[in-house]
Amino acid sequence: MVRPARSGAARAESTRELLLTTAERLYAQRGLAHVSNRLVAQEAGQANNSAVAYHVGSKDDLVRTICRGHAEAVSAGTVELVAAARDSRHARDHVAALVLPYTRHLAALGSPCWAARFIAQVLADPVHGPTVGWHEGIVAAHAEGGTAMWSFAPPLPGPVVTLRLQMMRLLVVHTCAEQEADADALGRPVDWEPVGEALVDALTGVLLAPHR
Amino acid sequence: MVRPARSGAARAESTRELLLTTAERLYAQRGLAHVSNRLVAQEAGQANNSAVAYHVGSKDDLVRTICRGHAEAVSAGTVELVAAARDSRHARDHVAALVLPYTRHLAALGSPCWAARFIAQVLADPVHGPTVGWHEGIVAAHAEGGTAMWSFAPPLPGPVVTLRLQMMRLLVVHTCAEQEADADALGRPVDWEPVGEALVDALTGVLLAPHR
Repeated sequence: MVRPARSGAARAESTRELLLTTAERLYAQRGLAHVSNRLVAQEAGQANNSAVAYHVGSKDDLVRTICRGHAEAVSAGTVELVAAARDSRHARDHVAALVLPYTRHLAALGSPCWAARFIAQVLADPVHGPTVGWHEGIVAAHAEGGTAMWSFAPPLPGPVVTLRLQMMRLLVVHTCAEQEADADALGRPVDWEPVGEALVDALTGVLLAPHR
Repeated sequence: MVRPARSGAARAESTRELLLTTAERLYAQRGLAHVSNRLVAQEAGQANNSAVAYHVGSKDDLVRTICRGHAEAVSAGTVELVAAARDSRHARDHVAALVLPYTRHLAALGSPCWAARFIAQVLADPVHGPTVGWHEGIVAAHAEGGTAMWSFAPPLPGPVVTLRLQMMRLLVVHTCAEQEADADALGRPVDWEPVGEALVDALTGVLLAPHR
């Protein structure tokens, strides 16, 4: 089959995609703080060190753009699962509606995957963490799902709710990142389905745990 | 009060302590992979760039030595709490015996504190993680406490136990690291007591959660 000559626009789009994928891999492997746009361009085989500036923008733009791609996919899944769980009287279903869209997105990315390590770093970053993240764009569905989920919790003081929210986020984000890193080191894919279900079980436990 | 002249041995001991503290702070702030022994010596005000080699050894030795200091303190607390919980019929007491020695150790270190971020990095490091860690030296107490704790869990397949153990470790380690980082950014100490109790509540929830 003869491959048709690609237009300039299609070539630029594929260069942009290559830069985004390369950046995510390098961030996962070497750490967000230690990867320059110049390195991304070089590792993506671009002769011009300004390729990132031309195709994407600043390093902030690069991080934000990769996050947005993930957020859109996770968002669609969350809207769907939160709607499906709406009438459930089981706490676990409401937890699942907020967790499984993330592990299913990671599964859909295939192997090797760097997204979970990238996202763990972005959320831990004092600059990027508060402003961008995988939950960007799923605000309404998250709010509805969160309200439904917390209605099952025992009475808890405000600071304890804040602490449990922090713990639930860290549990999901770092478990996925470590699963991804371990699988990468062994050269095999993560089986995300049991990881997702184990996370839902665990988070339901955290949600329902009595306050001492 | 006249301060007595310090012996050469005392001076070397205090230089060594200074190097260990400086290294831990730099690892926490800049990342384990991105701090050389030369930088540690410079930041500790040592004219000789080989000060770490002379007083401590290699970078591996440096990381291991800092870990050992924490492990000894956590170890003592764990032995004590596991013994005290031995006859308890409450799952929460057995979880507390394994968690509170860590948060109490962090509290005892005072403020500012870098240990929680240092330890989170060491445990996530593919080289250091499996060989050194804060649990080094508390093997017997941990084994006894772990067995007691897991006797309260519902029947779980082996891979699920492994996943829950991973999640419990990540929950403790990353919650403490993020609490420490947030407090550092705000220039205030962490109130470790409620953090420790919230972790024990949450981990008890993870332990007892039904398997779907």
